[in-house]
Amino acid sequence: MQKIIECVPNFSEGRDRQKVDRITSPFRDRQDVHLLDVQTDADHNRMVVTLIGSPEAVKSAVLDAMEQAISLIDMRQHRGQHPRMGAVDVVPLIPIRDVAMEEAVALSRVLGREAADRFDLPVFLYERSATADHRTNLAAVRKGQFEQMAEKMKDPQWQPDFGPARVHPTAGVTAVGARPALVAFNVNLGTGDIAVADAIAKKVRFVGGGLRHCKAMGVSLDDRGIVQVSMNMTDYTRTALYQAVEMIRAEARRYGVPVVGSEIVGLVPMQALIDCAAYYLGLENFDMKQVLETHLMQGEI
Amino acid sequence: MQKIIECVPNFSEGRDRQKVDRITSPFRDRQDVHLLDVQTDADHNRMVVTLIGSPEAVKSAVLDAMEQAISLIDMRQHRGQHPRMGAVDVVPLIPIRDVAMEEAVALSRVLGREAADRFDLPVFLYERSATADHRTNLAAVRKGQFEQMAEKMKDPQWQPDFGPARVHPTAGVTAVGARPALVAFNVNLGTGDIAVADAIAKKVRFVGGGLRHCKAMGVSLDDRGIVQVSMNMTDYTRTALYQAVEMIRAEARRYGVPVVGSEIVGLVPMQALIDCAAYYLGLENFDMKQVLETHLMQGEI
Repeated sequence: MQKIIECVPNFSEGRDRQKVDRITSPFRDRQDVHLLDVQTDADHNRMVVTLIGSPEAVKSAVLDAMEQAISLIDMRQHRGQHPRMGAVDVVPLIPIRDVAMEEAVALSRVLGREAADRFDLPVFLYERSATADHRTNLAAVRKGQFEQMAEKMKDPQWQPDFGPARVHPTAGVTAVGARPALVAFNVNLGTGDIAVADAIAKKVRFVGGGLRHCKAMGVSLDDRGIVQVSMNMTDYTRTALYQAVEMIRAEARRYGVPVVGSEIVGLVPMQALIDCAAYYLGLENFDMKQVLETHLMQGEI
Repeated sequence: MQKIIECVPNFSEGRDRQKVDRITSPFRDRQDVHLLDVQTDADHNRMVVTLIGSPEAVKSAVLDAMEQAISLIDMRQHRGQHPRMGAVDVVPLIPIRDVAMEEAVALSRVLGREAADRFDLPVFLYERSATADHRTNLAAVRKGQFEQMAEKMKDPQWQPDFGPARVHPTAGVTAVGARPALVAFNVNLGTGDIAVADAIAKKVRFVGGGLRHCKAMGVSLDDRGIVQVSMNMTDYTRTALYQAVEMIRAEARRYGVPVVGSEIVGLVPMQALIDCAAYYLGLENFDMKQVLETHLMQGEI
């Protein structure tokens, strides 16, 4: 069985097609690496790349892509709506098949150190790779963004894990870390009132006292005249998608508002959906080994 | 992408461990064949084997297993609760990956002809491979069982598709055919009254005016003091599992009986469960390509 890891690097370039192509070129036609998706956003001026492959091949391809990004992006000129702190803003590593979280953490440390050495770049470890509690959350690491990072790094609490204790002049800083697969899951409400979506989002998310592995915010879908609770399910193995939709449904009753649909943005691991089927069907004693495809994926034939 | 076919041959031996091992031996350590399951039932005196692999390798292994079964099983001596007509009772072929139903039908014809020639065995094509409507249903082909098959085959309507127009003296006859993956799905009811399960089964199944691709019967779970509607979902791509559970729930209301759980017996294709998750979560615009594992299975990396 071949080990598979996913990587979703975020680069601070979402407008220049040629630069996007050069940055993603190390992910194309590379042995043991498969490029699944490239999403560019001109407003955010940011690109989110999804690739999977063997841990060693993914690490090598990501380092080559970082080299491209660092040579092409000047953060002093960068403007975009999305918070960012570096040309290579964040490099999450996600165990997919036959890879323990500890192995993904170890890989993130090797990748972080090699990037720091090769590009003279400060690297912060975050999420499961974080070396202190206050550095776990990406938003905390990125707070102040590129412009205030030099000032922030004077604080002994914000020394990088690898690389120089000063911001790279054009590439800023980068966060690298292992984390569970994240599912982008949105639940649509039968109202146009954004205040309702905001209020429900606050109740359902972790920081508001809601679900442990759920981030949420209200979003208006203007073209449809409805609103949605837009969520990142940060560990579907512990906080299931059905828990989020049922909690939203319960909370929405307070406003006499129905749940009218939902959507998954991007990729979702099979188990995140099968857990929901098992809940709603009331499946007893179900084992993922009963899923035919698990046998097709294990390289057993 | 490697073509994958599933085969679930049923052999009329479920008691003698040595014979079971000899019959299944061609499925072990065979290139491009993977043995997933062997279920023996002493009361039925029958064995159900599940294997997957490349079409050519599966065909070759099944023919070798048939040779073992035909040399070891004497239907004149066979006793068991399950209806049966041959030493190799039925050989279903199920397309799994990158195999069209038409290809599975073609394979069933090649397998049926080779078995007829090699073992001097009458072979009936059934299900999607059937050469006439009245031969589609396995129960219709098997009606009369081994003991009355000689009489039945005097009827021009019941000439075999391949092989001699007379029953094999010890091995009887065999049905071979392509069909969609079948899901064994049982829904448990909060009552001990078997009449309720029977009545609901009759309403939910195709022959009773219910769901097109659903066979159902009532079963008593004596150790738990409850009953269940035991179903074969014969084409989950057209009749979904959630339709069955919701129809049973609605019908059970008539008796004031709750649905208390469900179970899947054996293997289930990922899509059969993901379709249920999509229904209950209300997923809009969902595409199976969003499931991460579909990319792991396509030999893309």
